[in-house]
Amino acid sequence: MARSTSTQRSLPPSDEIGPGFESHVPGVDYGVLDNLVGYAIRRAQILVYDDFLQALAPWDITPPRFSALVLIARNPGMKQTDLAQLLGIARSGVVMLTDGLEALGYVRRVASKTDRRAYMLELTSAGSKALSAIEAAVREHDARMSSRLSEAEKSKLIQLLARIGPAGEQQ
Amino acid sequence: MARSTSTQRSLPPSDEIGPGFESHVPGVDYGVLDNLVGYAIRRAQILVYDDFLQALAPWDITPPRFSALVLIARNPGMKQTDLAQLLGIARSGVVMLTDGLEALGYVRRVASKTDRRAYMLELTSAGSKALSAIEAAVREHDARMSSRLSEAEKSKLIQLLARIGPAGEQQ
Repeated sequence: MARSTSTQRSLPPSDEIGPGFESHVPGVDYGVLDNLVGYAIRRAQILVYDDFLQALAPWDITPPRFSALVLIARNPGMKQTDLAQLLGIARSGVVMLTDGLEALGYVRRVASKTDRRAYMLELTSAGSKALSAIEAAVREHDARMSSRLSEAEKSKLIQLLARIGPAGEQQ
Repeated sequence: MARSTSTQRSLPPSDEIGPGFESHVPGVDYGVLDNLVGYAIRRAQILVYDDFLQALAPWDITPPRFSALVLIARNPGMKQTDLAQLLGIARSGVVMLTDGLEALGYVRRVASKTDRRAYMLELTSAGSKALSAIEAAVREHDARMSSRLSEAEKSKLIQLLARIGPAGEQQ
């Protein structure tokens, strides 16, 4: 199956997803990896990321692009620097991300009235409209990826994942 | 805090981790993101990845490099193509990954006696020695990232994550 979409082009080869990833191959000794929470997260992330890209390819939407659209839609007046922090990406990354969403016609930069150096982000009407369909596709993808879990297990998983991080961090 | 290490150089800007990522900022409306298993995984992955890079910087070890070292150590006769599949990366990626581990002096390619076109991977004695220290550092990092979970919760989390994926896949 061809998996090279335009959204993957910027990934370095070692982060590109190869064909036929199986999260646990019988007969292979995974050693310590099987006991690491971090490896379990990474393994799930690879599967989810791959399926997300395929499911959202019609809209050219990647996981960070989707998160950005949702956050911009729901938090009026959001600046690029806020978005970078919320997404956990570098400033140079958020500029590239915003450029991409602007090129798709989904987002526009609006000069802030209170801070001349800052731009606020907002959805265009095309962006709002697309987001409905995109969100439905993401929900479907997410349900598919967690279809072997009950609703209670899904909630439990989300709760446990929210507690991952250095002990000092308050959530 | 300066976070640019040599291991991050190959990441595209949108995948670089920015300073001060907080997984859940009070007052921000995350909308549907809070109900998606995929977003919970992504958020945890960003925190874990960042901490991993910092903790393993003394050895120049990234998560894929660590997984590769463990798999090579525990599965004698492993070929590059096997490794690509196990790690879920593209073939071009596994070549880059192996090159990196060879440059560090941890891994060597050995021509297969049964298949002239294939190379098998094995640890050097320096690689075996380094892996003990690296594994200890990874365990410490992993324990730190899941320090707010009990042992039972950690096991539960690993089990739930192992069931993420399309329904058809057997594990």
